[in-house]
Amino acid sequence: MLYKNAGVDIDALNLIRKGIGRQVVKTFASINRSAFGLFGGIYPIGSEILVSSCDSVGTKVLVACATGVNDTVGADLVNHCVNDILTTGATPLFFMDYIGFSNIRGKIIVDIVRGLAQACIKEKMALVGGETAQLTRFYPAGIYDLVGFIVGKVSRTGYIDPAARVKAGNIILGLRSSGLHTNGYSLARRVLLRKYRLSSYVRELRCTLGQELLKVHRSYRKDLQPRLKHVNGLAHITGGGFYDNLKRILPPDCSAVINKRAWKPLPVFRLIQDLGKVPDEEMYRVFNMGIGMCAVIDKKHLAYFKPLKPLIIGEIVKGNFGAVVE
Amino acid sequence: MLYKNAGVDIDALNLIRKGIGRQVVKTFASINRSAFGLFGGIYPIGSEILVSSCDSVGTKVLVACATGVNDTVGADLVNHCVNDILTTGATPLFFMDYIGFSNIRGKIIVDIVRGLAQACIKEKMALVGGETAQLTRFYPAGIYDLVGFIVGKVSRTGYIDPAARVKAGNIILGLRSSGLHTNGYSLARRVLLRKYRLSSYVRELRCTLGQELLKVHRSYRKDLQPRLKHVNGLAHITGGGFYDNLKRILPPDCSAVINKRAWKPLPVFRLIQDLGKVPDEEMYRVFNMGIGMCAVIDKKHLAYFKPLKPLIIGEIVKGNFGAVVE
Repeated sequence: MLYKNAGVDIDALNLIRKGIGRQVVKTFASINRSAFGLFGGIYPIGSEILVSSCDSVGTKVLVACATGVNDTVGADLVNHCVNDILTTGATPLFFMDYIGFSNIRGKIIVDIVRGLAQACIKEKMALVGGETAQLTRFYPAGIYDLVGFIVGKVSRTGYIDPAARVKAGNIILGLRSSGLHTNGYSLARRVLLRKYRLSSYVRELRCTLGQELLKVHRSYRKDLQPRLKHVNGLAHITGGGFYDNLKRILPPDCSAVINKRAWKPLPVFRLIQDLGKVPDEEMYRVFNMGIGMCAVIDKKHLAYFKPLKPLIIGEIVKGNFGAVVE
Repeated sequence: MLYKNAGVDIDALNLIRKGIGRQVVKTFASINRSAFGLFGGIYPIGSEILVSSCDSVGTKVLVACATGVNDTVGADLVNHCVNDILTTGATPLFFMDYIGFSNIRGKIIVDIVRGLAQACIKEKMALVGGETAQLTRFYPAGIYDLVGFIVGKVSRTGYIDPAARVKAGNIILGLRSSGLHTNGYSLARRVLLRKYRLSSYVRELRCTLGQELLKVHRSYRKDLQPRLKHVNGLAHITGGGFYDNLKRILPPDCSAVINKRAWKPLPVFRLIQDLGKVPDEEMYRVFNMGIGMCAVIDKKHLAYFKPLKPLIIGEIVKGNFGAVVE
């Protein structure tokens, strides 16, 4: 099975993004035109740069709705956003959320926001506002969409510009993910729910399927913030997997080669691949496979990262073939 | 008919917001705790204050989807957000959008973003990013949700704090709306689509119903920005109508009295009220009735506002009964 068969067409989405890009750059009169396509939108203000990002938790909310556990998707959303702006070197300032629904119990909304608030406190940022919108006959009953918006800041000197820093010969460190994080749920659910229920205990996972699929998106801020000056580029492995996300931080004359034998994918990914007969390339394009963040560094700085127990999963080479997984 | 009958329960939403508020203030360790409930979230940075807001266009998107006109909802969203932060005195800096869908044509997304980009250029801000999320089997086919996030800034001296500025004896100016703006669509559609199609020409409206319902949310920035120093408080008349939105800018010892005979509601509101037999109070609670922005000013500053042809629609009085429409 391919992600396309589960209803998500990454190629079509990329084409749409190109169409969007042409419109968006027209609004950049006053700012850096090269910013489109980065993980975070950037906006200079005085001696600092504001970095913002917008994300949803995708169809992971369907797992939350089905299991009745609604107080962890907030942390998924917050951590996803925190990781996105971290790739530019930014520290979180504040967060806003949008909850869209047609008909859900009030308790669910309070659960969601409690999760959001707790995650914001952990990440040292304020939840300054949000919108709770009841749209009649729009969302299926019992279902909500959850969207987050983060603003952080970074000094001009602290700003990580991978185009200027990433060089051939750099190594790529992989930091472990906790599970699917917030990507690939349409494919994962399609494959796994053919065999299991969310309440089924799955031996390979050592927990129920619901527990596995709700594992909270890991925040890499605490681990990476003190080490950002030794980082040449960070790729948050989200939608588009290793291929699309590493590409974003490559200078035009460099490519990334990932060695997939450098780590063992988490059991949940092996299960999805086996049950769904998903080709290898599709797996590394849709999922994080157990590596949620890639840090491109100079070999000589490896010692700074030792406490994080990183895996050396690849390297930057000359050439413009993008990112490959071999 | 009441808004509740159309599936939107403002009282229940207000209760939920209280539950949310308790969670949210816990994240305000470093900033102003009084900010919850304002039109924009505020965050001090250096000598300036960042003001942000999050909104959707609600079920107005259903009208866009049904008529195939998808390049104006972007301006609705942008202008709604611009007006929200304008109430604090803030100038727009940048914008991000979220488009959630399951199955729509790529052209629709490009149309939406073209509308967003054009509106951002008019409002002098950058569209720094966004998220286009395809959620399988989630949204009805052909339907999307559209959410926007804005960040603006205002100097500490320019910040409009209505609690400190609004006084008994102040007058309330009303600025005309272009139509429904982006609120009350669930009720409006429920009532109007019983009698008309979106393509029906409606004599009272002098256009088709679809054209009326897609009239673009007016931005008040150009008109109000040069006059902000003469403003004591601004209320953007959105969900919750005159009652809930004026309440937000009242000091504890003041109330607002709106004189509904001061202006003639737009024809579309009279049509909704007649066809739906909607009680008067409900109309002023759900809709803007032709007044999209209220400016509370000192009588002696009225001359500054003359070029805007404002209506004097009410006054601030002593007492803590909130906002009334008589």
